[in-house]
Amino acid sequence: MQSDELILPTVADVESAAQRIADHAYYTPMLESPLLNRQLGGRLLVKAEVVQRTGSFKFRGAYNKISRLTDTERAASVVAFSSGNHAQGVAHASQLQGVPATIVMPADAPNIKLTNTRAYGANVVTYNRNNEDREKIGRDIADRTGAALIKPFDDPDIIAGQGTVGLEIVEQLAERGLRPDAVVGPVGGGGLIAGMGLGLDSRETGIPLFGVEPEEFDDTRRSLLSGRRESNPPGRQSICDALLAESPGEATFALNRSRLEDCLVVSDGDAQTAMAAAFTHFKIVVEPGGAVALAAVLSGRISCQDRCVVVVASGGNVDPQTFTASMDSVDWSAPPLATT
Amino acid sequence: MQSDELILPTVADVESAAQRIADHAYYTPMLESPLLNRQLGGRLLVKAEVVQRTGSFKFRGAYNKISRLTDTERAASVVAFSSGNHAQGVAHASQLQGVPATIVMPADAPNIKLTNTRAYGANVVTYNRNNEDREKIGRDIADRTGAALIKPFDDPDIIAGQGTVGLEIVEQLAERGLRPDAVVGPVGGGGLIAGMGLGLDSRETGIPLFGVEPEEFDDTRRSLLSGRRESNPPGRQSICDALLAESPGEATFALNRSRLEDCLVVSDGDAQTAMAAAFTHFKIVVEPGGAVALAAVLSGRISCQDRCVVVVASGGNVDPQTFTASMDSVDWSAPPLATT
Repeated sequence: MQSDELILPTVADVESAAQRIADHAYYTPMLESPLLNRQLGGRLLVKAEVVQRTGSFKFRGAYNKISRLTDTERAASVVAFSSGNHAQGVAHASQLQGVPATIVMPADAPNIKLTNTRAYGANVVTYNRNNEDREKIGRDIADRTGAALIKPFDDPDIIAGQGTVGLEIVEQLAERGLRPDAVVGPVGGGGLIAGMGLGLDSRETGIPLFGVEPEEFDDTRRSLLSGRRESNPPGRQSICDALLAESPGEATFALNRSRLEDCLVVSDGDAQTAMAAAFTHFKIVVEPGGAVALAAVLSGRISCQDRCVVVVASGGNVDPQTFTASMDSVDWSAPPLATT
Repeated sequence: MQSDELILPTVADVESAAQRIADHAYYTPMLESPLLNRQLGGRLLVKAEVVQRTGSFKFRGAYNKISRLTDTERAASVVAFSSGNHAQGVAHASQLQGVPATIVMPADAPNIKLTNTRAYGANVVTYNRNNEDREKIGRDIADRTGAALIKPFDDPDIIAGQGTVGLEIVEQLAERGLRPDAVVGPVGGGGLIAGMGLGLDSRETGIPLFGVEPEEFDDTRRSLLSGRRESNPPGRQSICDALLAESPGEATFALNRSRLEDCLVVSDGDAQTAMAAAFTHFKIVVEPGGAVALAAVLSGRISCQDRCVVVVASGGNVDPQTFTASMDSVDWSAPPLATT
């Protein structure tokens, strides 16, 4: 359903967001591995959003959005629904700005995400992912309490905030004298990749941008093909808990259909291999959903040969059991994990 | 045995080293966790040398040293003995400067360290840690081939290179408007901490500096107490494979005895808890020996209450089996791992 008055953020909105969050969000590092570069025959750079406040890029959009609320809205509190990274982002951004927050989260979210969201001072309400509607629960709370609803992706201020990742990428590449042949990011609802497209365009247009989805949750890929917002059938599973949005957002799809080169899919196994590669080559902890962009390169879907490719490692909030199970599941004797 | 002509590096040597390595070593990030800060009641910053080239700070000293060799020396190749991080640092720094390298490593070094040292193009010679003398093997190779011996810590150029970690720490703190109440780093042979003392003094003197050793390898702590270089008895074990030097170096001890506030010890279990805290709070992979400074804070030996403390996470070269065993060994229900 297309709204008559769809508001899309612009490059200027991303630039304003960058100034708004500058003293609060971390400017995250861009990492590189000489050994992995040699294996790939090119140059792979990892934008490490895992070391962002709250362990994912979601803090950027949440802080930007909450800082733009009116005083009346801030006094009334905020509410959000989220699988966990947006939850933490909103909880921490609210706390820093003195705004009470209620977060609606699936009861089966990773423990680290539930625990930390509470630790950032939010009131957490859980629901059953299979038979309850999180959007309805969130809206009911908003209606009842007057709280402002902080959507996870389909909001211009959220998209603009996430877009600061793209802005930093082109700044960091310029410092190194590099121009990327491809930039790759994960796609759940599409907020990060939509914002990144704007952020990349802040310096020069035309850098090829690719999205990556878990193979059972390829709604954006199918939407790009059909030209309309497709949904994922219910009942599917993936370890990429951060990327299980049901369908693209209205604003995110409008941006992504005009900016994305392509949207690719990777398997859960590909994501686990990428988590292991991040462990051994980059020394960072990446959650399954945060590893899909790296997985797209390591599985050969996006070539790095004689090219410079940037991937976003978007989050690192993974329970130790899930992490160690991933480490145990991969083949350490084969590239990209074995270096000789 | 004190040499008559002991040459000690100075603050100026660290500053020169910083210029020499600037285009080659990475300027590593300083990380922070709002949730952990709240638990500690203060501000803890982690200098993440795990994302340095070759996965540890050792690249800094190795690159500095090799760049100062004469053309004749560089043509003849270099040789080094190392438990693994210096090995990789020398192998990669040699490769980048076109110098052939032979590295003498214990046969029981972590697989990642052996594999990567070979992957950086070095010729690796293994020895038995329990009954062979690595220094003698290294010197024999040097005598036979004319190769320059690149010592792991007891060398002014190595110490000056490692000291750039301290230089970056004070620069990064100044950017944040902070002055640390304590800076804490690991101690094997003492090269990093000795260099850090010089690097810290580049801006202002008097920042308290603490070393940390594994409890079975507390040669520097005992040497500071006795006033002479003590050795560790043979046959001891620790998972902190990077910190098993037999005794302090001549130059490193001379610097450390005049600059270190204290040298503390932590257990292997403390190091494993710190590895888990680095995983969950900072999203970085830290090897056991690289985690001892963080362990000193998390175990309460160095207080962070109402203070600003910087710890160096010095390396991340750990085999997945060792890492997952550490994750499995800790109590995730208690602070600092549980946040609520």
